[in-house]
Amino acid sequence: MNERYDIAIIGSGPAGLSAAINGKIRNKNIIMFGNKNLSNKLIKAPKVNNYLGYSDVTGEELKDAFVNHINDMGIEIIGEKITAVYAMGDYFTLMANDKMYESKTVIIATGMEFTKPLKGEEEFLGRGVGYCATCDAPLYKGKKVTIVAYNKEAEEEANFVSELASRLYFIPMYKGEYSLNSKVEIIKDRPIEILGDSLVSKIRLAKQELDTEGVFILKDSISPGQLVPGLELENEHIKVDRNMATNIEGCFAAGDCTGKPYQYLKSAGEGQVAALNAVSYIDSKK
Amino acid sequence: MNERYDIAIIGSGPAGLSAAINGKIRNKNIIMFGNKNLSNKLIKAPKVNNYLGYSDVTGEELKDAFVNHINDMGIEIIGEKITAVYAMGDYFTLMANDKMYESKTVIIATGMEFTKPLKGEEEFLGRGVGYCATCDAPLYKGKKVTIVAYNKEAEEEANFVSELASRLYFIPMYKGEYSLNSKVEIIKDRPIEILGDSLVSKIRLAKQELDTEGVFILKDSISPGQLVPGLELENEHIKVDRNMATNIEGCFAAGDCTGKPYQYLKSAGEGQVAALNAVSYIDSKK
Ligand SMILES: Cc1cc2nc3c(=O)[nH]c(=O)nc-3n(C[C@H](O)[C@H](O)[C@H](O)COP(=O)(O)OP(=O)(O)OC[C@H]3O[C@@H](n4cnc5c(N)ncnc54)[C@H](O)[C@@H]3O)c2cc1C
Ligand SMILES: Cc1cc2nc3c(=O)[nH]c(=O)nc-3n(C[C@H](O)[C@H](O)[C@H](O)COP(=O)(O)OP(=O)(O)OC[C@H]3O[C@@H](n4cnc5c(N)ncnc54)[C@H](O)[C@@H]3O)c2cc1C
Repeated sequence: MNERYDIAIIGSGPAGLSAAINGKIRNKNIIMFGNKNLSNKLIKAPKVNNYLGYSDVTGEELKDAFVNHINDMGIEIIGEKITAVYAMGDYFTLMANDKMYESKTVIIATGMEFTKPLKGEEEFLGRGVGYCATCDAPLYKGKKVTIVAYNKEAEEEANFVSELASRLYFIPMYKGEYSLNSKVEIIKDRPIEILGDSLVSKIRLAKQELDTEGVFILKDSISPGQLVPGLELENEHIKVDRNMATNIEGCFAAGDCTGKPYQYLKSAGEGQVAALNAVSYIDSKK
Repeated sequence: MNERYDIAIIGSGPAGLSAAINGKIRNKNIIMFGNKNLSNKLIKAPKVNNYLGYSDVTGEELKDAFVNHINDMGIEIIGEKITAVYAMGDYFTLMANDKMYESKTVIIATGMEFTKPLKGEEEFLGRGVGYCATCDAPLYKGKKVTIVAYNKEAEEEANFVSELASRLYFIPMYKGEYSLNSKVEIIKDRPIEILGDSLVSKIRLAKQELDTEGVFILKDSISPGQLVPGLELENEHIKVDRNMATNIEGCFAAGDCTGKPYQYLKSAGEGQVAALNAVSYIDSKK
């Protein structure tokens, strides 16, 4: 049987880190998913002067302070992407690419992704469109698959799927070197629309059309509504109350994903509130 | 004419400081009221480990980091107590003991006072009970006045009022040396209830009763409902939405005064959100 955590935190930006620290202080069994570098939005900031206690630092320096804090408290970041969260009644199941985790509560701290969905993406979701190529690969054995890739991690998924698919088109949305199998066909073009009837049959790019039965869109983050089926949104953000509780019992959210202003300190404060309310929720169920 | 500020911030704890920093970064003309030591709740904390970026520090160390931050940004703390805030339509008037300030917006960041009101205090407010002895002193010329004092600053007010009142009873609720006029009568007893008919006529203490026409209760902070007439509360806290807006247009709140959990990081995050929304409000009025 899987170990069941008290609090699973998705995201390692200021919101997720603060949630982890506060959950840990309250002696809860926590697990946090994210990136070793914490958050690109943190390391890319040239100058930060609005995080109370740190005037005039770089994002990198703030990141170092945060890393020291979690290291001091023995908090680890699991470098896996969560692709789906299912509410099971009194606990949640979290899906990573090749693993499953269980937790009594979940805190969504995934930040805000600014790329718009492709035309047809939401319409065909689950009918040919997916966000985890390795998970769904068996469905596309002997079929034509397209991967729209926003980051390097997608390359590993592409290599894996290419073993099963009849053809694998890889559309990179980032620059750099690609480490791909010879079976993977790199298409340098801009995706416009996903087309089909009841199922996906085509993807239209700026300069061509490709026949394809599956389209995987691999971004840094998945929109919260897709991550947690049934989650209530409001203007593209997760709807929360003042306790950072969502419409799903036991599921909390914090940071940019809950709304503007997009800021470190606001995110960190909300992560704390989310964690302390998750703790109260767990204790109320005893 | 008074200078009219963009944002007046009442309170110099983490919520007020963070509001000040964010208002200043947005080039607003701000003024902040509070204490030079920032907040007793900050300097008294023996160990803080839940403020993301600072693990295992004393409250005093965290205070020093905050002081450095506001110093770096040229932010000053005005060491005055605000006793009342009046909404004047498109601006606010703030009353300090002997001064008046005007501001387009107000952020209440006064923390949470844990002393309960005395029996009769709320009933007789404005009919013999007050919170600013120096302001109302002229009303009590030749009359008997009682001051219930929770801090040393009350002594100055007592000395001033003793010049006008026929008798001045001073009930200290704190320990220490008192620097009081010979006209001030120190009563070491515990106040229980304020009595009267339509106006105050008596105060009942644990061991005696005193005839008095005025009772001033001088605490570190005034409850928000008394500070800002018309402010909507919910369970003793200021009711705010996710933008930290109160029911009064242009009036925002942040920190402990808006509800639990009572924490530095939550307060600081809310101060930031309050300030940024005050800025949007000001800009929308242009
Ligand atoms: C260049 C730049 C400069 C900025 N400067 C400032 C500034 O000076 N001051 C300021 O206050 N703010 C600044 N910001 C805004 C600030 O970066 C964000 O508001 C803040 O990072 C939000 O924190 P968060 O924890 O909500 O999310 P993020 O910091 O975005 O972190 C989310 C994390 O979760 C991970 N994640 C997402 N989905 C999943 C998943 N499914 N599974 C596992 N992990 C996942 C992401 O990879 C990421 O690491 C700046 C932003 C940028 C881009
Ligand atoms: C001993 C102790 C230890 C603590 N330890 C921790 C901890 O480890 N971690 C944590 O996160 N939290 C801790 N807390 C809680 C934390 O102190 C509070 O949540 C936090 O200080 C609230 O910040 P604030 O800005 O809302 O208000 P406060 O810090 O209370 O600041 C309010 C300020 O406003 C001033 N003020 C009030 N009314 C007026 C007025 N009318 N005019 C002018 N000025 C006014 C007050 O004098 C005060 O300086 C601790 C508290 C105590 C007492």
